Amino acid sequence: MGLRYASRFDGVTGSAIRDIFKLLTNPEIISFAGGNPANSALQSDVVSRLAQKVLAENGVGLLQYGQTEGYAPLRESAAEFFRHNGVDVKPEELLPVTGSQQALDLICKAMLDPGDAMLVESPTFLGALQTFKLYQAKLVPVDTDEDGVVPELLEEKIKACRPKLIYLIPTFQNPTGRTLSLERRKAIAKLLEKYEDVVLIEDDPYRDLRYAGEPLPAIKAFDTTGRVLYCNSFSKIISPGLRVAAIACTEPTLMRKLVIGKQSTDVHSPNLNQAIVDAYLREGILMDHIAKISASYGQQMAKMQEMLATFPASVRYTKPDGGIFLWVELPEGINATELLPTATKMGVAYIPGTHFYTEPGTHHNTMRLNFSNATLDKIEKGMNILKDLFIAQGLR
Amino acid sequence: MGLRYASRFDGVTGSAIRDIFKLLTNPEIISFAGGNPANSALQSDVVSRLAQKVLAENGVGLLQYGQTEGYAPLRESAAEFFRHNGVDVKPEELLPVTGSQQALDLICKAMLDPGDAMLVESPTFLGALQTFKLYQAKLVPVDTDEDGVVPELLEEKIKACRPKLIYLIPTFQNPTGRTLSLERRKAIAKLLEKYEDVVLIEDDPYRDLRYAGEPLPAIKAFDTTGRVLYCNSFSKIISPGLRVAAIACTEPTLMRKLVIGKQSTDVHSPNLNQAIVDAYLREGILMDHIAKISASYGQQMAKMQEMLATFPASVRYTKPDGGIFLWVELPEGINATELLPTATKMGVAYIPGTHFYTEPGTHHNTMRLNFSNATLDKIEKGMNILKDLFIAQGLR
Repeated sequence: MGLRYASRFDGVTGSAIRDIFKLLTNPEIISFAGGNPANSALQSDVVSRLAQKVLAENGVGLLQYGQTEGYAPLRESAAEFFRHNGVDVKPEELLPVTGSQQALDLICKAMLDPGDAMLVESPTFLGALQTFKLYQAKLVPVDTDEDGVVPELLEEKIKACRPKLIYLIPTFQNPTGRTLSLERRKAIAKLLEKYEDVVLIEDDPYRDLRYAGEPLPAIKAFDTTGRVLYCNSFSKIISPGLRVAAIACTEPTLMRKLVIGKQSTDVHSPNLNQAIVDAYLREGILMDHIAKISASYGQQMAKMQEMLATFPASVRYTKPDGGIFLWVELPEGINATELLPTATKMGVAYIPGTHFYTEPGTHHNTMRLNFSNATLDKIEKGMNILKDLFIAQGLR
Repeated sequence: MGLRYASRFDGVTGSAIRDIFKLLTNPEIISFAGGNPANSALQSDVVSRLAQKVLAENGVGLLQYGQTEGYAPLRESAAEFFRHNGVDVKPEELLPVTGSQQALDLICKAMLDPGDAMLVESPTFLGALQTFKLYQAKLVPVDTDEDGVVPELLEEKIKACRPKLIYLIPTFQNPTGRTLSLERRKAIAKLLEKYEDVVLIEDDPYRDLRYAGEPLPAIKAFDTTGRVLYCNSFSKIISPGLRVAAIACTEPTLMRKLVIGKQSTDVHSPNLNQAIVDAYLREGILMDHIAKISASYGQQMAKMQEMLATFPASVRYTKPDGGIFLWVELPEGINATELLPTATKMGVAYIPGTHFYTEPGTHHNTMRLNFSNATLDKIEKGMNILKDLFIAQGLR
């Protein structure tokens, strides 16, 4: 077979994680591996009712071609939703997209040439890393601590690498659950004023899943430059299967490139899905729904932390105020990557932390645990299995 | 503003056509410019009923994350639909995508590096040209005649340019409406056997809209190499707003790259939309619907041709057996590009043919006319306006 493929696929296999997710089609496995909402958080009756409603009101409009810029009513209602989060944008500064993953793809399409430098938190979301790799970005990790990415280190790397893009998940980060402090949010907005050709992607899909503490403004709330692209998604709070997210972009030239890129990528996102999310927002039922699912997720997180507290004290883990992930650091020598097949045989899955790093084959003592898609019983059972497994491996 | 954008946008403006479509939000204008189905061809009651049905049956499954490879039942039902068209594929050889435009984007993502050569029919679909340009393909036009692209010319260009990809719309082509003859379909499948590193994109969204003559097998039906990627869409026969299409790919390595590319682009296409199309196929209501809309579209095409027959004989136009477009060649000296603003002021829009060519600023005497989204009355009125305009410009 003499096929000549694109060089962007050199070294991209996509295999490790895909193989894990194939295991998870086995319903017997207790999965802490995904990033799924709880099944009980998905309101198929509401979605069905709203689908009927919007099709009755504007069926032909929804079934015809739509505008690349998005379904106009959703641009309005989502802009209002964004304003609640301190992101003050006009409807025309908001581009609905097919999930946040498409936001990342379109931003890379607009900005990146092969070899361009890009700064990412270390660790960070593996799905984002794959998108950046397919655009052949030179990925430069920036260290994080309990308060998120460290602005001083970020500035050092900006000076050293002249990145086109910075990618941050400031709130309840994937994979760590950590939240960037208020001071750091302001400091990073200031950095953008100083370095005039850097664009920041602020990916914020977990912010509304808060179980303790007070909401922090988005970095975008402090942006005076138009170079913070704020991405939010309805995947975690309404439904991932509907694939509706939005990018706030207040820089018109960049917005135009995002739109042209989207036009050539899929013409537009499906209208029906945008209209369903718009109806959720306009009926005012979303905030109650978020409150309800947050109550459950908060209990699930507490249960998982309670179980982690029974592990030997050498196991460190994050204690976030929200989101859907905890991050676990085992003592050096316990290899979470190698133990995954055994764990799944014992009935529990997680994502080895190594996949969230830009440097391959490192941090094998780390793992990401998701609690939103497992019941309290399963969390207790699954965590006990993991504890026994690690202790059998020498964990003290 | 010192922003450094990706070089793939150099020379891509996307403006000409986008500006035309903005004009068309004026409901007074008779538009022959789009590629939309008739509003009367869109069954919002059926879509609403099917949405309820699939959400009642599998609501949680549809609202959760889905597989990048597509909604499994649709892969089955669409594979059966493809088999009716002579494209014999297994469900796992079929990748549902967010409209055919995404098929093009993902194929380019898998295959093209900047500067790679790609052969396209001349003229061809402008939306495809924009996607190929954003992948920085070196676009090489191949001449066509009444029977579609000329295989001998195609082979010459394959030898001269060693293209990675060939892009053809063999049935009721966009923009010309022409159909590639059976002999040429076979000849092109043979060419792929001879040139072992060339991939053919067969884009076939209009094939089911046939108003006369007998269906021809797809080129894919003669493919012995696995290097014909057959794309079909439900946009023209169910709804463009739902954004559901599929790629048939019988080469496993290429399929894997398409899937990884899609994963990094939007994770998966929305499940609800795929399930609605699947239900259309499984209920067996699609063929009757196609028969019904084809009867109308056939009348609309006949009316537009009847009107063109009243134009001076120097005006040439295609006489297809189906699809949604006619292609008009005016005598040299009548500039359809320049006349568009006047035409829209007079109440009629079309797409200047120049936009369908890879060579900018040529073929200003050509235009694409769409008949599917205008009533018989509007076709008569709009064509009379165009005739008067062109005669006033010296058409004899």
